[in-house]
Amino acid sequence: MEGESLVNVVLGVDPGTAITGYGVVGETISGDFALLACGVIRTAPETPMHLRLLELFDDILALMREFAPDAMAIEKLFFGRNVTTAIAVGQARGVLLVAAAQQGLEVVEYTPAEIKQAVSGYGNAGKEQMQEMVRQLLGLSQIPEPDDAADGAAVAICHLQTARFRHL
Amino acid sequence: MEGESLVNVVLGVDPGTAITGYGVVGETISGDFALLACGVIRTAPETPMHLRLLELFDDILALMREFAPDAMAIEKLFFGRNVTTAIAVGQARGVLLVAAAQQGLEVVEYTPAEIKQAVSGYGNAGKEQMQEMVRQLLGLSQIPEPDDAADGAAVAICHLQTARFRHL
Repeated sequence: MEGESLVNVVLGVDPGTAITGYGVVGETISGDFALLACGVIRTAPETPMHLRLLELFDDILALMREFAPDAMAIEKLFFGRNVTTAIAVGQARGVLLVAAAQQGLEVVEYTPAEIKQAVSGYGNAGKEQMQEMVRQLLGLSQIPEPDDAADGAAVAICHLQTARFRHL
Repeated sequence: MEGESLVNVVLGVDPGTAITGYGVVGETISGDFALLACGVIRTAPETPMHLRLLELFDDILALMREFAPDAMAIEKLFFGRNVTTAIAVGQARGVLLVAAAQQGLEVVEYTPAEIKQAVSGYGNAGKEQMQEMVRQLLGLSQIPEPDDAADGAAVAICHLQTARFRHL
């Protein structure tokens, strides 16, 4: 795939205050996926929240500037869990969404089931099954680590798969 | 109060995606409060979320640049309501917190009971009682409108009252 130009580059994100996973995935002219970067942005629990969110903002902007993605794909949240968690995740989401808007990226949200369906062909796929599909689709020898990085890559793949079907 | 220099300027905010209330309150050397500005930032429901959040970000940054507050005071959320609302409020909070961090403001959070206590002397004060106290403390002829603007001013007053007691 080396040297082949990319027709579409997507930043996938899995937001959280303590840890935000990301994957930057490109699609080649021949339709292959290429992982450009993946990893996590961690912020320290002992740092005041507004400064943690600024770190997240600065780090995600740096990634956007480095890889110039066309779009940011982000998981749509439905969890019925607790409200305190929802506010914390909402805060991280707000930061990522503002960064994307500031950089003029297209922003697309996908439900967990849509991501599973697009990546593995099965809306109820388990975590290991998803990670193995991410590995295969990106042509990697190992599953990206930690899990949040693989989750970020999965959202990016979901967007590229969905965009492909949209254009058929 | 005209011409008297302000020793402390606080931006109080009541965050939401559809409507964020704010009040900029200064304290004079003689210990009076002066309302410098209050109002609301509204964003249109039909606009995509990331663009609404960017509007909120740009508008709050403009206020921070105009009034150069020393601190931003924000309500600490506890509501046991629904998770979808919590994510939406969280997103708006994230945007406000990042803006404050970027501008180097001190950020302080207060619970609803702390705000009521500091403004009215009574932690279970009703909405009308609070609004009337905001009017009196700011020396206004009328209660600030809409409600969210008065709520923003109340958070700012809470911070100034609390800071005053801290220094005694």
